[in-house]
Amino acid sequence: MKARVTVTLKTGVLDPQGKAIEGALTSLGVEGVTSVRQGKVFDVELDAPDEAAAETALKAACEKLLANTVIENYRIAIRNGAGKAAPGSKEG
Amino acid sequence: MKARVTVTLKTGVLDPQGKAIEGALTSLGVEGVTSVRQGKVFDVELDAPDEAAAETALKAACEKLLANTVIENYRIAIRNGAGKAAPGSKEG
Repeated sequence: MKARVTVTLKTGVLDPQGKAIEGALTSLGVEGVTSVRQGKVFDVELDAPDEAAAETALKAACEKLLANTVIENYRIAIRNGAGKAAPGSKEG
Repeated sequence: MKARVTVTLKTGVLDPQGKAIEGALTSLGVEGVTSVRQGKVFDVELDAPDEAAAETALKAACEKLLANTVIENYRIAIRNGAGKAAPGSKEG
């Protein structure tokens, strides 16, 4: 089963890396950019009997390793074959 | 206008960081994970008269700074208000 986990900074948390990218884009002549915030994405393949089991495993992975839940949100999207997001994908 | 740019490694490009995460998850007791590949996500806000202009600006941003197009793919999704992906989002 394939899944995509997206980890983004919570609103209000400063993102100096995003600010640097924003400045660099302006220097490079890309116009109109008013804000950039950077996050991470993990494409995970896992063996799980069903979507619920996969989501439980991925939630554990996020809580233990992939996201710092003090300052980051995570979102799990299970993708079945055609690459569609599961309706049960969650914002942590 | 809000947009999300997702940058992922091309198929076949080695991802040692992903491999390390995979190993760490197994050590931490998350079972069933067979592959992890890490990418980046950029949440960009920009002033653009319409979606086409926004996409052109973001494509320039990806080519110049956000993605290394030798080894990475990028995907641009324009989000209007409700956070839906534009039908014209592209795989670069």
